[in-house]
Amino acid sequence: MIAGIIGATGYAGAELVRLLSGHSKINKLLLSSVSFEGGQIEEVYPNFLGRVSGSLLKASDVISGADVVFAALPHGVGEEFAASCMERKIHYIDLSADFRFGAPPQYKDSFNDEEVYSAWYGKSYKNPGLHKHSVYGLPELNRQRLKELASQGPVIVGNPGCYPTGGSLAAFPALAKGLMRTDNPIIVDAITGVSGGGREPSRSFHYPECADSVAPYKIAAHRHSPEIACNFAAMSVFSAAASSPQMAAPLPPVIFTPHLAPMNRGILSTVYIPLNDSWRRTSGNDAFLKALMPASKENEEKANMIRALYADFYKDEPFVRVLPAGLNASTNRVRQSNYCDISVNLDLSGSTLIAASAIDNMVKGAAGQAIQNMNILFGFDETAGLESIPILF
Amino acid sequence: MIAGIIGATGYAGAELVRLLSGHSKINKLLLSSVSFEGGQIEEVYPNFLGRVSGSLLKASDVISGADVVFAALPHGVGEEFAASCMERKIHYIDLSADFRFGAPPQYKDSFNDEEVYSAWYGKSYKNPGLHKHSVYGLPELNRQRLKELASQGPVIVGNPGCYPTGGSLAAFPALAKGLMRTDNPIIVDAITGVSGGGREPSRSFHYPECADSVAPYKIAAHRHSPEIACNFAAMSVFSAAASSPQMAAPLPPVIFTPHLAPMNRGILSTVYIPLNDSWRRTSGNDAFLKALMPASKENEEKANMIRALYADFYKDEPFVRVLPAGLNASTNRVRQSNYCDISVNLDLSGSTLIAASAIDNMVKGAAGQAIQNMNILFGFDETAGLESIPILF
Amino acid sequence: MIAGIIGATGYAGAELVRLLSGHSKINKLLLSSVSFEGGQIEEVYPNFLGRVSGSLLKASDVISGADVVFAALPHGVGEEFAASCMERKIHYIDLSADFRFGAPPQYKDSFNDEEVYSAWYGKSYKNPGLHKHSVYGLPELNRQRLKELASQGPVIVGNPGCYPTGGSLAAFPALAKGLMRTDNPIIVDAITGVSGGGREPSRSFHYPECADSVAPYKIAAHRHSPEIACNFAAMSVFSAAASSPQMAAPLPPVIFTPHLAPMNRGILSTVYIPLNDSWRRTSGNDAFLKALMPASKENEEKANMIRALYADFYKDEPFVRVLPAGLNASTNRVRQSNYCDISVNLDLSGSTLIAASAIDNMVKGAAGQAIQNMNILFGFDETAGLESIPILF
Amino acid sequence: MIAGIIGATGYAGAELVRLLSGHSKINKLLLSSVSFEGGQIEEVYPNFLGRVSGSLLKASDVISGADVVFAALPHGVGEEFAASCMERKIHYIDLSADFRFGAPPQYKDSFNDEEVYSAWYGKSYKNPGLHKHSVYGLPELNRQRLKELASQGPVIVGNPGCYPTGGSLAAFPALAKGLMRTDNPIIVDAITGVSGGGREPSRSFHYPECADSVAPYKIAAHRHSPEIACNFAAMSVFSAAASSPQMAAPLPPVIFTPHLAPMNRGILSTVYIPLNDSWRRTSGNDAFLKALMPASKENEEKANMIRALYADFYKDEPFVRVLPAGLNASTNRVRQSNYCDISVNLDLSGSTLIAASAIDNMVKGAAGQAIQNMNILFGFDETAGLESIPILF
Repeated sequence: MIAGIIGATGYAGAELVRLLSGHSKINKLLLSSVSFEGGQIEEVYPNFLGRVSGSLLKASDVISGADVVFAALPHGVGEEFAASCMERKIHYIDLSADFRFGAPPQYKDSFNDEEVYSAWYGKSYKNPGLHKHSVYGLPELNRQRLKELASQGPVIVGNPGCYPTGGSLAAFPALAKGLMRTDNPIIVDAITGVSGGGREPSRSFHYPECADSVAPYKIAAHRHSPEIACNFAAMSVFSAAASSPQMAAPLPPVIFTPHLAPMNRGILSTVYIPLNDSWRRTSGNDAFLKALMPASKENEEKANMIRALYADFYKDEPFVRVLPAGLNASTNRVRQSNYCDISVNLDLSGSTLIAASAIDNMVKGAAGQAIQNMNILFGFDETAGLESIPILF
Repeated sequence: MIAGIIGATGYAGAELVRLLSGHSKINKLLLSSVSFEGGQIEEVYPNFLGRVSGSLLKASDVISGADVVFAALPHGVGEEFAASCMERKIHYIDLSADFRFGAPPQYKDSFNDEEVYSAWYGKSYKNPGLHKHSVYGLPELNRQRLKELASQGPVIVGNPGCYPTGGSLAAFPALAKGLMRTDNPIIVDAITGVSGGGREPSRSFHYPECADSVAPYKIAAHRHSPEIACNFAAMSVFSAAASSPQMAAPLPPVIFTPHLAPMNRGILSTVYIPLNDSWRRTSGNDAFLKALMPASKENEEKANMIRALYADFYKDEPFVRVLPAGLNASTNRVRQSNYCDISVNLDLSGSTLIAASAIDNMVKGAAGQAIQNMNILFGFDETAGLESIPILF
Repeated sequence: MIAGIIGATGYAGAELVRLLSGHSKINKLLLSSVSFEGGQIEEVYPNFLGRVSGSLLKASDVISGADVVFAALPHGVGEEFAASCMERKIHYIDLSADFRFGAPPQYKDSFNDEEVYSAWYGKSYKNPGLHKHSVYGLPELNRQRLKELASQGPVIVGNPGCYPTGGSLAAFPALAKGLMRTDNPIIVDAITGVSGGGREPSRSFHYPECADSVAPYKIAAHRHSPEIACNFAAMSVFSAAASSPQMAAPLPPVIFTPHLAPMNRGILSTVYIPLNDSWRRTSGNDAFLKALMPASKENEEKANMIRALYADFYKDEPFVRVLPAGLNASTNRVRQSNYCDISVNLDLSGSTLIAASAIDNMVKGAAGQAIQNMNILFGFDETAGLESIPILF
Repeated sequence: MIAGIIGATGYAGAELVRLLSGHSKINKLLLSSVSFEGGQIEEVYPNFLGRVSGSLLKASDVISGADVVFAALPHGVGEEFAASCMERKIHYIDLSADFRFGAPPQYKDSFNDEEVYSAWYGKSYKNPGLHKHSVYGLPELNRQRLKELASQGPVIVGNPGCYPTGGSLAAFPALAKGLMRTDNPIIVDAITGVSGGGREPSRSFHYPECADSVAPYKIAAHRHSPEIACNFAAMSVFSAAASSPQMAAPLPPVIFTPHLAPMNRGILSTVYIPLNDSWRRTSGNDAFLKALMPASKENEEKANMIRALYADFYKDEPFVRVLPAGLNASTNRVRQSNYCDISVNLDLSGSTLIAASAIDNMVKGAAGQAIQNMNILFGFDETAGLESIPILF
């Protein structure tokens, strides 16, 4: 099978090249790059010398020769490539934000996905019909939908953003199992490595400006905020739908704060989920006093219960590992793998669930997840091409 | 004046040596070290060669020759040195946790400080009388008390922990000005550099185990949790006391989650403070929908108001900089200085204040703050010895 | 086939576990660890969770059940395990220095390998007979010998040190092709990542002591010095032997200076090889003046000639890449691969060859090369288990 | 006194701002910046907030108001500013390469400094007269000349490059004391931190491209090569001049290889100096064999003798520290100071001196040395403004 990669010379594109080169079902790659058209991928990435060789073509030549197309492009330019793929009846997996939005049906009355996309990305849909064919490619949320659509024809996949992947997976079981209070915000506090900023040099990612330092950025202003919120809504709806056909409870606001840390790869998301009355142990002043003292045995037991719920929720997922008590999610334990590690704890007062997740932003947060989506669409083993064992350093 | 430093060869001790060597009022240092007794400080820290030279004595010889004593020791061993200093009628500034606790008077009915200390540090007070003479040395909270006590005799200062310093300063104005809901937790999500773990080698701080990676640790189990909670309580009481003699409102639980990042110095604290009805803009499902869209103008205005309150609260503080809109706290902007930078933002739904602070954990988080306390006790210019301009890299 | 790994919980051992888990000819691993005996490898390395699981046995149980044994142990303890393997008639690949020495036959009159080993490692051979069966496992030097010995029975392989691998490969073609003056030293100036120091925490590798800093260490005192010198001698002899049966020219002294840099993996070796009169362009004061000015065209041409000699020398090597002009060896281009990249340049005066090589110290410098040796011994495809494409970050 | 800084917003300029702000003789700074003219320095460097404030003016306004001018500009634009300063009769200290060349008089017949400058920097002198007034500002080489010129009128100082500073100081005593063979090259193998590349973002200094990796660059092509060579020549001449009025011996070629390491600051230079027959212990095949074995006692004694010569040579230098045996130069021991640390060793064969030096490239390698030059010109204490104690991390 021939895989095409449009935008092969950015970091996510090059990661697709690297991973697909080792995929047992892919025997050829077709690559394109606007910046380096006419060159060779191994000139742009000399680490590939002797292992991966490929001419950098025009995007149209990639699409016309491929059996599946990945696009790792800036936001706002993917619609025409998606349309070409649909015409050629081949799957199109887009790593930009262009096909990520799409509220769950039950929410359609509450908010309009195109409006949300436009407000954050400054573009409207030129070809709204394409977005009806599309699916948000978070397998842990939409695996069934991906399979259904693939059984009907070519599919457009909106591959998730890196932060929404890590943040959503940390919260999904709590949302699905109804642990959450809905009048308090869910806070997603996340830390990313610098590769998340892409290959283009800039002041923020210039070594002396970001090495040996940590800072938040785009507080209450990051484009991944609405994507996370939509994921939370979707998972709540699914879960609500299971018991009743309508969305019962309101949703809490999502607060998302990204931080930049001096590391190449990885996203660590610490997610604070307020527990509802069935689950919380304390409230009011009692909660303050509880939080003054070390964790009680009751707290540990409750944390174990929730950890078990998480483990159950993800028991069939090939790439989610719910960690045993005592082990925290750490980006170096998922390095260069498609894993999402999740650790589950309770705050001292027993009122808030603290779920931390670690992913490799370039793999589960981008190229790896895109390949996982391809595997699902084609009915391949979901782990094909993603066998890399996490490497500690 | 002669300053004594007990425990001079740990990282905090060495930082005291470095900073006090440049303090205009200190003309001699007396140093002690259990591990290197009989050696020279410049052998342990050859970066000092030709600039700082000093024999490493016994602690008792330091105390008997000094006009002020700093102790940078493990927890649980400071009481005897404090007692000796009180006997010699000289101030004693302790960088361990031994003298940090002491609930504000209004809280005495609610919790017992010694109990909190014992529960977390596994030791009880051997000499409880000493703790009555002591004061928690966070100048922004207790400057007046420090001065008062110093006017009466020798003082024992419990120098604050690094995390409590950064976390408390980010929240104080909101607590003092009554912006907070008291039924939701305040979340202190913090990221530290590796020097916070001290000079002793260990697996966690072995380069290949922590470089190029980020992880949380001691979730709901870090000893700085109760110290932060006590600070929040103390500031709330002070503020409540200003308007009425009794503590009116209950306090929310504090959730503190520390993370380790691959950097030498610095603590970045992102503090989430739920706003009360007078300050929050939205609630319920409306909050969810607001958080789906980019920040509104109303949000920006509200954030500006709160930023102004913060600036006003800290207007006379020599070491707190409330940053203008658009600038986030970043550890490399306070590097090697005694500054605490604070940035103030509102979440998209307008329900939560997001205050981020950056400090150098070795300076404002340890040795610098100890010197600031000494300056206050002796009536020196509060910035003496702490003139270093933050260095970007 | 079952592979046994003695010392599986050190960094080199764990890297063997990781790589052999993906080796198509290995279907089971047997692991031992003195420090963690009775535990599980995935408890020591939780990054392996769900992917690699294995009980940590006694070394004897590993040897008795395996078809090939790797030992990643401290120096000086391998002889007994080697003897057991010889008894069981299985190959034994030792990653310590115990079986690395063994001067080429022509040198036997000049120096005694055991003497060299003893002088540097402080131990003598307890079982000298074993060392006669052993071979130094640098495939680019001894591939033929490895194959010959394997055809005769079980083999003991002394897997090369990390520095000797990088330094030797950078110099081999120049030595073999006779480019070198023999009255000037060859200088191997190398920079290593911190994982080279192993898993045991120590002051030198404590994050704040080595991050953001570079220093040489063990100048004229590193145990890899004699190993490099022996490799140079061996390659010179082989080459001399090709034309005449006796060693003609004397050898220059080797100067080896290691440096520690703040990175996890990788060794960069910059090797300065003085050219003999047939190859050098200038000498005397003329050389000084030439070096004052930018490189001349003649210099570039000569460099190209030498680069071509290098490329020719390594043309059949699966893991050596001689880089084209304009590209320098860089550790991030061989990261997590078994490659050795070599760049070739001439100094401005045209008197010295500057060959730089980059390897991953954990792969080509340790575990990967050990697997390459196993592949050679068993007649497997030499790249089996080592297919990983270098990853830029 | 008012100091002017032209090009205040680059890294070297900002470091001048930081250091001069703490200089006891400077009470005002005038700053210029082409890129940020009309702005404030504290907007470009918010780490300066509350401590350093200054409008960014035109260069001409800086020159007309200042008592001394520092220029931290790209190469090739300084002549006009130097001319203005000479007209205004104020000293001009240029951190670019424009005034660094100028062979020592005895060499004038051998090579032409303008030719060397032009060949490397692609520009010729527009105003050759200015270069006659200029002096190369390496105090350890030219302190006397700096004082002499300053006693006669305004001086143009060519502040040394960062690599030439570290490399030259490591070799000077050996050159001055005549230890060197002149028919072998001197090799300067150096490793720099990323700030050496300046503030402008580029691919090479983009965090994910240079973090966690080491590589050489510009092999036999770096502009600092001829500067180092000229320094070696100058020191040899001075030394020769001391005993005889003519230059006796020819000079060896200089080989300079820079490497980039993932650290913010610092240059580590390892300099290999071949010893002449009076000093070397071995040669020929004997040297090879000596280098096979650990260092002999004789080697240690010879190294001690040379170390003593070094210590004697630098005994009056305020910023050079010759380290005791057993301590190697390390960039973190000179961090943020104007020190140059030098360690002295002998190779195992006793034929080559290995001198390693460490400097902070932004301080002794740029802004600090410029201030040292200013102090000399004005007769201030040479350490004024440079009192900062090296900080380990």
